[in-house]
Amino acid sequence: MDFEYSDLCKDYLGRVRAFMDAHVYPNEKTYHDQLASFGENRWQVIPIIEELKAKAKAEGLWNLFLPDSDQGAGLSNQDYAPLAEEMGRVGWASEVFNCSAPDTGNMEVLVRYGSPEQQAEWLPRLLAGEIRSAFLMTEPAVASSDATNIECSIVRDGDEYVINGRKWWSSGAGDPRCKMYIVMGKSDPTAETHKQQSMILVPADAEGITIERHLPVFGYDDAPHGHMEIKLNNVRVPASNMLLGEGRGFEIAQGRLGPGRIHHCMRTIGAAERALELLVKRAMSREAFGKPVIKHSIWEHRIAKARIDIEMTRLLTLKAAWMMDTVGNKQARGEIAMIKVAAPRVALEVIDNAIQAHGGGGVSNDFPLAYSYAGIRTLRLADGPDEVHERTISRLEAKRWLNDLG
Amino acid sequence: MDFEYSDLCKDYLGRVRAFMDAHVYPNEKTYHDQLASFGENRWQVIPIIEELKAKAKAEGLWNLFLPDSDQGAGLSNQDYAPLAEEMGRVGWASEVFNCSAPDTGNMEVLVRYGSPEQQAEWLPRLLAGEIRSAFLMTEPAVASSDATNIECSIVRDGDEYVINGRKWWSSGAGDPRCKMYIVMGKSDPTAETHKQQSMILVPADAEGITIERHLPVFGYDDAPHGHMEIKLNNVRVPASNMLLGEGRGFEIAQGRLGPGRIHHCMRTIGAAERALELLVKRAMSREAFGKPVIKHSIWEHRIAKARIDIEMTRLLTLKAAWMMDTVGNKQARGEIAMIKVAAPRVALEVIDNAIQAHGGGGVSNDFPLAYSYAGIRTLRLADGPDEVHERTISRLEAKRWLNDLG
Amino acid sequence: MDFEYSDLCKDYLGRVRAFMDAHVYPNEKTYHDQLASFGENRWQVIPIIEELKAKAKAEGLWNLFLPDSDQGAGLSNQDYAPLAEEMGRVGWASEVFNCSAPDTGNMEVLVRYGSPEQQAEWLPRLLAGEIRSAFLMTEPAVASSDATNIECSIVRDGDEYVINGRKWWSSGAGDPRCKMYIVMGKSDPTAETHKQQSMILVPADAEGITIERHLPVFGYDDAPHGHMEIKLNNVRVPASNMLLGEGRGFEIAQGRLGPGRIHHCMRTIGAAERALELLVKRAMSREAFGKPVIKHSIWEHRIAKARIDIEMTRLLTLKAAWMMDTVGNKQARGEIAMIKVAAPRVALEVIDNAIQAHGGGGVSNDFPLAYSYAGIRTLRLADGPDEVHERTISRLEAKRWLNDLG
Amino acid sequence: MDFEYSDLCKDYLGRVRAFMDAHVYPNEKTYHDQLASFGENRWQVIPIIEELKAKAKAEGLWNLFLPDSDQGAGLSNQDYAPLAEEMGRVGWASEVFNCSAPDTGNMEVLVRYGSPEQQAEWLPRLLAGEIRSAFLMTEPAVASSDATNIECSIVRDGDEYVINGRKWWSSGAGDPRCKMYIVMGKSDPTAETHKQQSMILVPADAEGITIERHLPVFGYDDAPHGHMEIKLNNVRVPASNMLLGEGRGFEIAQGRLGPGRIHHCMRTIGAAERALELLVKRAMSREAFGKPVIKHSIWEHRIAKARIDIEMTRLLTLKAAWMMDTVGNKQARGEIAMIKVAAPRVALEVIDNAIQAHGGGGVSNDFPLAYSYAGIRTLRLADGPDEVHERTISRLEAKRWLNDLG
Repeated sequence: MDFEYSDLCKDYLGRVRAFMDAHVYPNEKTYHDQLASFGENRWQVIPIIEELKAKAKAEGLWNLFLPDSDQGAGLSNQDYAPLAEEMGRVGWASEVFNCSAPDTGNMEVLVRYGSPEQQAEWLPRLLAGEIRSAFLMTEPAVASSDATNIECSIVRDGDEYVINGRKWWSSGAGDPRCKMYIVMGKSDPTAETHKQQSMILVPADAEGITIERHLPVFGYDDAPHGHMEIKLNNVRVPASNMLLGEGRGFEIAQGRLGPGRIHHCMRTIGAAERALELLVKRAMSREAFGKPVIKHSIWEHRIAKARIDIEMTRLLTLKAAWMMDTVGNKQARGEIAMIKVAAPRVALEVIDNAIQAHGGGGVSNDFPLAYSYAGIRTLRLADGPDEVHERTISRLEAKRWLNDLG
Repeated sequence: MDFEYSDLCKDYLGRVRAFMDAHVYPNEKTYHDQLASFGENRWQVIPIIEELKAKAKAEGLWNLFLPDSDQGAGLSNQDYAPLAEEMGRVGWASEVFNCSAPDTGNMEVLVRYGSPEQQAEWLPRLLAGEIRSAFLMTEPAVASSDATNIECSIVRDGDEYVINGRKWWSSGAGDPRCKMYIVMGKSDPTAETHKQQSMILVPADAEGITIERHLPVFGYDDAPHGHMEIKLNNVRVPASNMLLGEGRGFEIAQGRLGPGRIHHCMRTIGAAERALELLVKRAMSREAFGKPVIKHSIWEHRIAKARIDIEMTRLLTLKAAWMMDTVGNKQARGEIAMIKVAAPRVALEVIDNAIQAHGGGGVSNDFPLAYSYAGIRTLRLADGPDEVHERTISRLEAKRWLNDLG
Repeated sequence: MDFEYSDLCKDYLGRVRAFMDAHVYPNEKTYHDQLASFGENRWQVIPIIEELKAKAKAEGLWNLFLPDSDQGAGLSNQDYAPLAEEMGRVGWASEVFNCSAPDTGNMEVLVRYGSPEQQAEWLPRLLAGEIRSAFLMTEPAVASSDATNIECSIVRDGDEYVINGRKWWSSGAGDPRCKMYIVMGKSDPTAETHKQQSMILVPADAEGITIERHLPVFGYDDAPHGHMEIKLNNVRVPASNMLLGEGRGFEIAQGRLGPGRIHHCMRTIGAAERALELLVKRAMSREAFGKPVIKHSIWEHRIAKARIDIEMTRLLTLKAAWMMDTVGNKQARGEIAMIKVAAPRVALEVIDNAIQAHGGGGVSNDFPLAYSYAGIRTLRLADGPDEVHERTISRLEAKRWLNDLG
Repeated sequence: MDFEYSDLCKDYLGRVRAFMDAHVYPNEKTYHDQLASFGENRWQVIPIIEELKAKAKAEGLWNLFLPDSDQGAGLSNQDYAPLAEEMGRVGWASEVFNCSAPDTGNMEVLVRYGSPEQQAEWLPRLLAGEIRSAFLMTEPAVASSDATNIECSIVRDGDEYVINGRKWWSSGAGDPRCKMYIVMGKSDPTAETHKQQSMILVPADAEGITIERHLPVFGYDDAPHGHMEIKLNNVRVPASNMLLGEGRGFEIAQGRLGPGRIHHCMRTIGAAERALELLVKRAMSREAFGKPVIKHSIWEHRIAKARIDIEMTRLLTLKAAWMMDTVGNKQARGEIAMIKVAAPRVALEVIDNAIQAHGGGGVSNDFPLAYSYAGIRTLRLADGPDEVHERTISRLEAKRWLNDLG
């Protein structure tokens, strides 16, 4: 359990940091200005993103997330963790390195579970950052805390599958470059609980697909990425689009969500670090009642708690990554569940305190805090709400003592 | 300390509730649709508001907030509390009854501290709901936790005052109907700490005023109300616009903020009640792991805590209102500070849990929860951040034992 | 809902306070010294208690707790609340006024549910403070969070009942003056859930009773009161000792526990007030880093939170008392459950902060804080753990919306 | 930053665990029974301790704590961490391995700062476990949160030093085997802040020393170890007893407290693990409302939070140990401060929840929970209260950005 960053990791980390300093932080305003300049036509590609993607690709800072694959950069989960943290300091930075969700997860699915034909059709353009993709899992009508509730149907009809259902929180589907969906549905509602689901590839322009609306997060639309509600009405795709085989959707989901969750956690820690930096700087530069805010003990308390919590969460995330690398995602599921619960909890508290330290500026867009809060608040719900992960963790604890209790 | 609602209060409460049922809840969607229909031109009056204002006025549900004045409805603070709570269940409802901030506070200032000429110029149209007003106090450059930091200058020059400064979070100044500002500034930086400030009336169309931008709250622009950043550059107004006299701004602020804070708290409790109602209904109607969510003990715990906290906060708010009515705002300052801290704290936790219970819907605009969270989060900063009120409360505690300790 | 103290209440409150000032606070050390002087023979009557009881009785400060009965002082629950709070400031003070648990609850049971013969046998000596009693309900072998788990059996045999079982946390049974137990058991395990239980009067010296040991609370034995584990082995009592009738034990428990819980809450608020007083005085009198501790903002924050929480809890307790007086204990069960959860939660946090402010002294017996913490910690378990009351509150919330949801 | 346990560590860990299983857990009752059998004469050596010490010594499980010294077992801080955690699962276990506070800290002081003569006089018997020692630092009269407040005086008089002062919380001084004190006092109150203090060796039987009383912790006397209040009245010791030189007391304290704090944290984590084990087993074996308590989601939530928090705290403690080993105690002071705050906070919450799960048993001595809670609560005060460590951490954060802010 060596958490020292490897030489490979350190090399990349130095380069990612340099890139962030040179190209990302200085363009935070550019990003928002370009988006604002679109007026109402917000669902279009933001030029600075494409510009920086080209630069990052040229510098070899590209597809850093894909372990155990020739198509990645050869970094383990543990190597990637500090890089993802660094990217997470700015909401849109990970896309610049082609390391943003949900594309990373979708690429992993194709690499791990896709047939050669499926890979050939989609992977090259995804890996090149030319197209985007979405992952259609959550549904508005049922409690997503229980994955067996899914209602979308995937029915075989000759050489095709017919898909009917309604999905929402399909993140990234608002992007004009988004060309492919991975859809989770039920192919056999009568099978045993975890064999009912299948995953299938669906072109975004297939007939029967309607993007009904975008869902804002607090008041943010996250354009052009977006979180969409999508209706699938008798959507037909070739049978060869089925991933891995009927009834294996749950298995793929488990395989996909592990890395996805840890990436989110890494970025969340980066966001927390950024918030703490802003908090501390603000508290150093403002005076109240005759001394700098940072010398008031209530702020000493909050800053110390933030530092402690961030340090601890980072270490646990590194441990989860190390376990994924060494004993596999399945064995690491307890640790993954833990950081899935811990990272947003910690980050939200840090950011909330940073908002408090910034006064009115904190809730506005003059600082990235309110936006960061909103985005990270969704992580307590996405990929399974806290309550489901806590259930998992509690059950693993119980297992440890089953023998003792006879 | 009788918290039983008076007959007068009960009568109004019944009518406000009936009005909410008949006209407000059914039009929540209308409000958003009308606003959405404006496209980018969001800073205009929303028709349903004007329509409902006419109805409310016709029913005598109008200006309910003004105690001890012929121009109000003859309700005490305690009588008004349950009405404000009821209105607070929907973000925009209080304006329908001409009971919305910052106009209520500004009308109070005019009634309590305005000269007959000042009253004649502004009060009738404000009381009629024809125009809106703003209160320009907070500044971007200094820590608002310490009121003595204000930098805006108000300098006498012959028969005029010349105002220079930069204000932000001037709520309501985005509204095209907003015609008047009450501006807080320093008329004598060399005077003793609490005699440096003055308040002065400034027409919104005075030369030298620039509304530089609006400040969003967690992505919400609150159009057409808005929270504006305003530059005052050599703005000249007649000397007669000075309120109460030079150096009395702090005194007016103290008088104004008490009622303003309690109104916010009352509405905040209403928002918390609404969130709890939504939480409970959601938890009753969704299943997870074989039984309704509400039967899972983690939700029993959260619902019980919400109910307890709301009950307690309402009682403390009623006590503060009762003290304002019986011993005056100054004597009630401890209780006002307490609810100013307690109400947002309680409401934010309830709303956050309601969001969690609603899954993805909770952070979106399908429910009023995320918007409510954002708005109430600002109350931990507005009218003095938590830390300042806690300081006040702590000092009052210390006073109780000064004699004991010699 | 008038929370103003009645004239009767004010009169008693003044006298109780005067008594506390004159006789209780000055004897806190006496109490501990006398107990310490017993050496190992701690289970004996502490002289100062008997001495002060005589004084209190002589001043008419006696049996203040019994509403709606000629045998009490004619005080309502609401009148009694501030008196109980006052007594709660010192752990042993309520006994001085013959207002201490579990005797108060047991006397209530006899007054409300006892036959004339049962009353004649026990009430006079209890009301006179000559004997003490205990309430045998909780059992070591089963989860007390679910009252239907009780295993103690009460079986009719001719003119007698035979009782077998094991009880613990029988508070007060350590006192040599304790002469009577009210025992809860099952008379018919086959009846419907809430008709299985009965309550029966058992003389403490009945054959078959063994006090097996005392249970400390943290490291405190609470001698001579004590919390005992008691074995009942074929204990026989006359059939006439049955209270109210077979199968009515649950009904009596519900009737008994309401007032018992509110008394505990009132005293708990008194303990919290005492802790806050000690905290503030300490923070005023010690310096750290160049200024009094109370001027450090972390302590302003903690003191303010304590004041807010105490005020709110007191108001909710007064409301619960008022409801018990006006609509009855059954209708007030939601409010009783709320304060049962809220009061210990609030008090424990205040006391814990007071401990922190006192440094090493706080965890020792130099101040009443650690002892108070230990005692109040048991209230989150006694008379139903938090989780059960939260369940009750959550269910009441659900009931409010049942019709809406069809 | 390799947190994998070294082979040496693993070997010791296996042996310590085996020892705990074979000799400590089975004798937890013995310990309490032997202590109870002393009656009032509790301040004597408990036989089972001496018996097990002999066994542990024979097995080479002895003085495991002393890094970088021939007199220890050759274990680094990181190697020692898991061993201390294991010992911390039972309150008295570390003494069995001669690894208990304050002797460990005192031995470190002698090894690092003692003269050959000082070492020769005290070290052999301490290392052999023949005698015990105490550390006299905290004083009852001043705020210990600010170390410069110390009032005890150490004045040179010819070949001697004369010591006058009052100390309390001198842990271990109750033990009849306790023969030596390290006393912190001021030798020059006029020197610069951190040069005023000195540390000096004082035989426990020196004239002028009075052990005035023992201080209980939440009712526990911790006999025979004890926390004593000690008066030093013109106590004279040879000048050669001065450690390191006049004015170097603060320097030694800094050197001593680092390892002391981390040892406490390691043991605290062990106590938290034990509490979680007890909690989980209890929740598995009790039923409420028709299913095992562990399947109620409120307990899933609490168990999950406990597991997450413990994992994170352990990792941070390992990091602190690793830093002490690699860059030294001074460079690790931020991390040491962090775990000093974090470990008790986490453990207290876990233990409190375990108490709640155990019902009445939890607050009694049937389980080690209440005792563990009491002991760990003192750690938020001992060796500097939380507030002081938070101040340290906050200042380190500020330092990081000093250059940025010019």
